[in-house]
Amino acid sequence: MRALQTYRPETAAPLNQLANILLQGPGTLPPGERELIGAFVSARNDCFYCQSIHGAVAARHLAGGESLVTQAKLDSENAPLTEKLKALLAIAGKVREGGKQVTAEVVARAREAGATDLEIHDTVLIAAAFCMFNRYVDGLATWAPEDPQFYRDRGEYIARQGYSAPVSPAA
Amino acid sequence: MRALQTYRPETAAPLNQLANILLQGPGTLPPGERELIGAFVSARNDCFYCQSIHGAVAARHLAGGESLVTQAKLDSENAPLTEKLKALLAIAGKVREGGKQVTAEVVARAREAGATDLEIHDTVLIAAAFCMFNRYVDGLATWAPEDPQFYRDRGEYIARQGYSAPVSPAA
Repeated sequence: MRALQTYRPETAAPLNQLANILLQGPGTLPPGERELIGAFVSARNDCFYCQSIHGAVAARHLAGGESLVTQAKLDSENAPLTEKLKALLAIAGKVREGGKQVTAEVVARAREAGATDLEIHDTVLIAAAFCMFNRYVDGLATWAPEDPQFYRDRGEYIARQGYSAPVSPAA
Repeated sequence: MRALQTYRPETAAPLNQLANILLQGPGTLPPGERELIGAFVSARNDCFYCQSIHGAVAARHLAGGESLVTQAKLDSENAPLTEKLKALLAIAGKVREGGKQVTAEVVARAREAGATDLEIHDTVLIAAAFCMFNRYVDGLATWAPEDPQFYRDRGEYIARQGYSAPVSPAA
C-alpha cells in the first residue's frame, strides 16, 4: 500500500484522507469497531495485507485484543461482540457482496440494536471503501510482509498517529 | 450520490477529490476512456446511477457517443475500441471480481497493446474505486432519476466542470 502511495502521490492524498476520516475521525463508533469492520471485510475479500494491518489496529483499540479480532473475522455472530456491532458487521458483509445485497432487514436489525443512521452510513462506506482498498492492493499484486510483528508495530503506530501522518523513518 | 454528499460532507471531500483526480486529472488516458472504465465496472456491478452518469460523461468525450458506450458496456471485446482500451477494460473487469483475479496474463496483454505502468495502475484504481462508489450508492438505497435526459445534462456539466466543482444551481 505504501509503495503504491509513493508511486502515485496524487491519488494517495485523498485515499489517506478518506481512511483517516472513516477510521479515526470524529464519530460515535469507537475507532476499534471501525477498524474491525475494515479487517472483517478485508478477511472476506482475502486481502492479507489489509486484514493484517487493520486487524492489528483494531486489536490495539479493543479490550479483547488479537484473539477477539480473529474470532470476529472467522465468526462474528458467535464472537463476544455487542449486538450492535454484530449487526453492523452483518451490514458490512452484505456491502462486500454488493450494494444491492443490503436488505431493509439487515438495516432494521442494526437500528433495533441501537445503531444511528450516521453509524449505518459510515459502516456502509467503510465496507465499500475496503472493497476498493483490497482490490487496489491485490489487483497490483503488491508485496506484503509475512511477519505478524510487522503489523503489530505498524498497527500501534497507526493507532497513535492516524493515516495522514508522514511515514515514520523506521517503517 | 449528491444526497449522500450533503449528508456527510466530511467524507464527500476526499471522495470527490479521488473521482476528480482519477477521472479528470492529468494523465495519458483520455478522460472519456477513464469514464468508460468507470461506467463499464458500474454496469457489471448493476449500479444504475453510476453507469448512467459516468456513461453520459464518457459519451460526451468519446466520438462514438452513447452508442459506443452501450456497446462497450455490453460486449467490450467486440466493440469498436482500440486494443489497448479493450485490454484495460479486461483488467477492470477482473478487478471488479476481486483483486486476486487480476492475472499476469491480463496485465501483459495491456502492456503489449501499449499501456504504460501508470495507465495500468490508474485502471486498477478506477475499477477499485467504482467498486466502492457502486456499493456506497446502492448499499444505502439512494434514489436515482430514471430520465436519461437527466444524465445527459449532468454528464455535460461534469465533462466541463469536473467533480469538485460546486453543485450547479440548476442541478
